[in-house]
Amino acid sequence: MTTFVRFKTNNEVFYGVLDNQIVHVIEGNIFDDWKATETKYPLEEVKLLSPVVPSKIIGVGLNYYSNVAALNAQVPQEPVIFLKPPSAVIGPEENIVYPPDVKELGYEVELAVVIKDTVKNVSRDEALRHVFGYTIANDLTAKDKMTGGPWTKAKSYDTFLPLGPWIVTDLDPSNLELEMYLNGTKTQRGKTSDMIFDVPTLVSYISGIMTLNPGDVIITGTPPGAGFLKPGDHIKAKIEGIGNLQNYVVEGR
Amino acid sequence: MTTFVRFKTNNEVFYGVLDNQIVHVIEGNIFDDWKATETKYPLEEVKLLSPVVPSKIIGVGLNYYSNVAALNAQVPQEPVIFLKPPSAVIGPEENIVYPPDVKELGYEVELAVVIKDTVKNVSRDEALRHVFGYTIANDLTAKDKMTGGPWTKAKSYDTFLPLGPWIVTDLDPSNLELEMYLNGTKTQRGKTSDMIFDVPTLVSYISGIMTLNPGDVIITGTPPGAGFLKPGDHIKAKIEGIGNLQNYVVEGR
Repeated sequence: MTTFVRFKTNNEVFYGVLDNQIVHVIEGNIFDDWKATETKYPLEEVKLLSPVVPSKIIGVGLNYYSNVAALNAQVPQEPVIFLKPPSAVIGPEENIVYPPDVKELGYEVELAVVIKDTVKNVSRDEALRHVFGYTIANDLTAKDKMTGGPWTKAKSYDTFLPLGPWIVTDLDPSNLELEMYLNGTKTQRGKTSDMIFDVPTLVSYISGIMTLNPGDVIITGTPPGAGFLKPGDHIKAKIEGIGNLQNYVVEGR
Repeated sequence: MTTFVRFKTNNEVFYGVLDNQIVHVIEGNIFDDWKATETKYPLEEVKLLSPVVPSKIIGVGLNYYSNVAALNAQVPQEPVIFLKPPSAVIGPEENIVYPPDVKELGYEVELAVVIKDTVKNVSRDEALRHVFGYTIANDLTAKDKMTGGPWTKAKSYDTFLPLGPWIVTDLDPSNLELEMYLNGTKTQRGKTSDMIFDVPTLVSYISGIMTLNPGDVIITGTPPGAGFLKPGDHIKAKIEGIGNLQNYVVEGR
């Protein structure tokens, strides 16, 4: 189990591995061939960034049985997929900017799957071999813009995808606890075992449509309890075995 | 007016400018600072690639008055936007792969706008200053997968976005003729003057939601007459002032 971070220090961006609250700078490509250097920093002295820069982000709607039940929705026959643009990604502790034209800004804690290599048409059995690791996503949606048709406007505003704080490898994604805390109060709780389409199924299904590339991210849906944010809020997503992803909401102009 | 190409020769990829059927290799960044080198090739000896590698592609649905009328649809109150993944992009003369699970593969000729720099919240008046140039897109859609909810599955299969053959700068996008030829027969014809939301309006609107980056592509909707492809077909999109984009359809496995 390795924990990969991406961070900024002295205005330079580095990848690193985290060990005992110390970040060791690495050289090379995290998905392929890398090695730790002698350079290291205490975790609290660096600014963590989104741990990955994806070429695409695929979201999955309505993927928890208990959430579908809570919404009185039908269980989907196949995964309901959507895209979020890379321009929406922010890192841990960064500000979520509340767009002035949005009336209802929904938050959702989600397990984020980071792809390891180029994947097309992989079987469910082989799918997890192509997963690099896992991080936490907060899938933000302008719920008042979900007015039928494509979901793109609602899902694509800048800062609408906090990701982080790091990528953990060799994690079993099948039974992790997810929680969300809004201003310190727990609002969402679930287990990944409640997913309608599990991680191997999602990787296989999506790779049957589009080629996945190293660093691409699949955000896998949310358990019940999702709510709304307003400027001034603090939102913290927590996933067992990974950690916490917290962000602050500020008013956009 | 400059014509930029991206091409492969001797297994290396280059950017170049096209002049009188001769491609001059350039150094630097086409969006910023570049200069022509002494190296040149006859156009017919290079393999043209998609002229740009976008970080995101934003599509616009139902954007021609005559097409909305032909479909008996309502004129949208604001642009209907969707995303296509970068993994769907192919270049001119490349094969469109007909996915085995798709029943209706629709084609659509569209003017593609290539963004020049980082753009957020630009006004309609200032929008064209942030456009690098124009190319041709064929927006392919698995129409049988447009079953409500997000459009992503229908729009995102590999090879579903032929782009090219090159980018032409300093073109007035307001009154260009578009045509599509299926196996040599003209099936679509329109003028960009028939757009419901014109190019400056689209750039302004989209930049109000998400930051646009150099090389990002907006595909601006299609005139009436769009139809369906089958394996073996030849499809040629043509836009006045730009050229032709042709591709072949092959059966996927």
